[in-house]
Amino acid sequence: MANKPSIPSGTRDFGPEEVAKRQYIIDTIKRVYHLYGYQPLETPVMENLSTLLGKYGDEGDKLVYKILNSGDWTSKLKNEDKSAYSLNPFTDYKLITEKGLRYDLTVPFARYVVMHQHELNFPFRRYQIQPVWRADRPQKGRYREFFQCDADVIGSNSLLLDAELVLMIRDVFETLKMNVTVRLNNRKILDGLAHYAGCEDRFNQMVIILDKADKIGLDGVKKELSELGLSDEQTERITDYLDFKGDNSQKLEYLSAIMQNETGKKGLAELTELRDRIAEYYSKHVDVEFDLSLARGLSYYTGTIYEVVSRDVQMGSILGGGRYDDLTGIFGLPNMSGVGISFGLDRIYDVLNELSLYPADILRSSDVLFIPFDLTCEKAALHYADEFRHNGLRVEVYPDVDAKLGKKFKYADGKKIRYAILIGEDEFKGGFMTVKDLVSGEQRQMKQPEAIALIKA
Amino acid sequence: MANKPSIPSGTRDFGPEEVAKRQYIIDTIKRVYHLYGYQPLETPVMENLSTLLGKYGDEGDKLVYKILNSGDWTSKLKNEDKSAYSLNPFTDYKLITEKGLRYDLTVPFARYVVMHQHELNFPFRRYQIQPVWRADRPQKGRYREFFQCDADVIGSNSLLLDAELVLMIRDVFETLKMNVTVRLNNRKILDGLAHYAGCEDRFNQMVIILDKADKIGLDGVKKELSELGLSDEQTERITDYLDFKGDNSQKLEYLSAIMQNETGKKGLAELTELRDRIAEYYSKHVDVEFDLSLARGLSYYTGTIYEVVSRDVQMGSILGGGRYDDLTGIFGLPNMSGVGISFGLDRIYDVLNELSLYPADILRSSDVLFIPFDLTCEKAALHYADEFRHNGLRVEVYPDVDAKLGKKFKYADGKKIRYAILIGEDEFKGGFMTVKDLVSGEQRQMKQPEAIALIKA
Repeated sequence: MANKPSIPSGTRDFGPEEVAKRQYIIDTIKRVYHLYGYQPLETPVMENLSTLLGKYGDEGDKLVYKILNSGDWTSKLKNEDKSAYSLNPFTDYKLITEKGLRYDLTVPFARYVVMHQHELNFPFRRYQIQPVWRADRPQKGRYREFFQCDADVIGSNSLLLDAELVLMIRDVFETLKMNVTVRLNNRKILDGLAHYAGCEDRFNQMVIILDKADKIGLDGVKKELSELGLSDEQTERITDYLDFKGDNSQKLEYLSAIMQNETGKKGLAELTELRDRIAEYYSKHVDVEFDLSLARGLSYYTGTIYEVVSRDVQMGSILGGGRYDDLTGIFGLPNMSGVGISFGLDRIYDVLNELSLYPADILRSSDVLFIPFDLTCEKAALHYADEFRHNGLRVEVYPDVDAKLGKKFKYADGKKIRYAILIGEDEFKGGFMTVKDLVSGEQRQMKQPEAIALIKA
Repeated sequence: MANKPSIPSGTRDFGPEEVAKRQYIIDTIKRVYHLYGYQPLETPVMENLSTLLGKYGDEGDKLVYKILNSGDWTSKLKNEDKSAYSLNPFTDYKLITEKGLRYDLTVPFARYVVMHQHELNFPFRRYQIQPVWRADRPQKGRYREFFQCDADVIGSNSLLLDAELVLMIRDVFETLKMNVTVRLNNRKILDGLAHYAGCEDRFNQMVIILDKADKIGLDGVKKELSELGLSDEQTERITDYLDFKGDNSQKLEYLSAIMQNETGKKGLAELTELRDRIAEYYSKHVDVEFDLSLARGLSYYTGTIYEVVSRDVQMGSILGGGRYDDLTGIFGLPNMSGVGISFGLDRIYDVLNELSLYPADILRSSDVLFIPFDLTCEKAALHYADEFRHNGLRVEVYPDVDAKLGKKFKYADGKKIRYAILIGEDEFKGGFMTVKDLVSGEQRQMKQPEAIALIKA
């Protein structure tokens, strides 16, 4: 007896309706990417571990799925005379694995740029929509196999590009009719904050605390900062900063009062310049808000940082991104500035599902089901179907002539097919067809051209 | 110093042009699948090893990529007190891996059907276009990571469905303008042949020899059959069969003379019925040929078998498929008859490349490059670009105002952008733009609506 089959936890099957919905989101994002001159790149699912490891921190390295060497994977273990008890799970995998699954789309992009630097046209705008894998604990909105939809442009530090990414975000969510807030900040402003609070030596720890301000609240931030050894005055400067209320212009004014070091001032200038470029473009579904607490973790970002959240559904960020000064340095090509964003397909999908925001026509199944009454009629139906398909109609011929008519209508109903076309002996001999509208129940005899015109309309 | 990055052997990066070409093939196949009522399914890249193993033979099991368990993958080894020297590479991977990479799309499809049998509408038509992985030795036209484009319909044994698959194959290659031969056979006829040659007890070995008749020639077949212990007369019956020359009707006549057992006669009846349904549909680029030697290996096929080869480029089969009586039995759901085909995207891509059969417009890059002369003009260009994009045009704004003009034109050239639009002080003040056709060299001043109309045309 076969076991009941299943799929690994954190992974999903997508049936016809789910694929159609996801494809709608992907097509929307792709269309916008193309409108802004971004071109597609696809990289392999399997990358060398030498490419992947050391790029995502120690914690990330653990979450990279590793692929067992093919052939005799035991040989290196044997050469090193390893006993099971001496194996260290966090280092000795190197003896039996050399490849891993893609962990994000940014590192493969950097690798690609370095490998093809002499053929590429800079600034190089690329987009990439592919799945990635992380051996994380699955939970709501977090999967082990999930899609990222990245756009990056590399080879220019112009803020025009930072601004265009905001417009691209606007275009995507306007099309999807999703109410979102785009949160913007600049990494250099966090540097200015650390200077202002006199804790530049504890910059990373400060960023980590800022990053979770949403979750732990102002009191939590206070507590953690004082645990970090900051004085009350230092802590207050940071919490006042986090607590500042005002619109984007007021925030810029506030920042101009507290940014004192060169980096901080530069961050403020960049954010101001970005504001000037995008100020007039605000739109129906998309708000833009400067969020001074925004940090996006300990990433490689050095300038503008982006995050998008839904205004209607509680669900972590549905987009992240930022500017980086040195993405390809890890592969030996230094000083390439770039900026990029990544839409989280799976979370956007979950939000649109919750709000039922899909257009009806994307779930379109077949247009017509031919129901022939015997094998001769079936042959005729196949001919008709061919002509219908040449006219762009989606057509099925019900394959088992002997099955009960009720079963066939039930099949049409299950697939939400609107028209059934019956071909019996009368129809075959008379050269016409009986077209039944399964929604209205109306049924009429007609010739092929009329039927095609009716159904196309 | 960073090492020069690389990708695993047998895998590939696809840059913008390659993605566009591959997408053209995929879109063509998808469009045809939809016209015939097939609906999309996507399954995870990672499957449980219990799903994958035992389905592809011992050799196949070895070629499945296994994923190292995450967390402490050494614990089971330690529990079983395994020393490195006692490890068997072909069985003990089970102690450290539980998941593998998808090896084909058929087994995940069968798994999906069994898991969702109570929700599905039968006959269930699904298509699936996703990559698969095999730890094979890479060679020309064979990769470790490659795409399959499958369509299967399950839950009916009607030959109408077998016939429609031939029409789908025709529609795809007619659209691609690729000259191909569709080879058809029926697995039951091979059974009839074994009966005719009196070697039913050595059926599998006979099929293996038939399967390589293309490579080893008639003499090779003779030699291997006699090594198998067949008498000269038995061998002759098989080689006469393989050597039979004639058109499809003559082949059917020949078969009617030698098919003696019930299974063989049924196979002949099925092939004849299939011929009757598709005889009138032959087309410009697609020939249909009954190939009596066609076996498609030791697969699960039980009826019609399909193979497609290019008539212009030497390159193994670019499509395979067949009818099976019991695909889901391995997962506990017996007696589900189905039929399916699988387009080999990578080989079709290689053939189209060799013949340069891609339409020119699929390689379309951006339509316009705006070249602003200073930051004020850049802001104006961003506004114009927004309007152009709302009109569906693909637009880039060159981001670095200080870069040399020649560099900007070179960029447009590299990306094959036809129009450059210059925005300098005069243009900005006068509210017009200078549109330069980079193909003709012609250059004219105009207002925005005229420019949009010109470029859209």
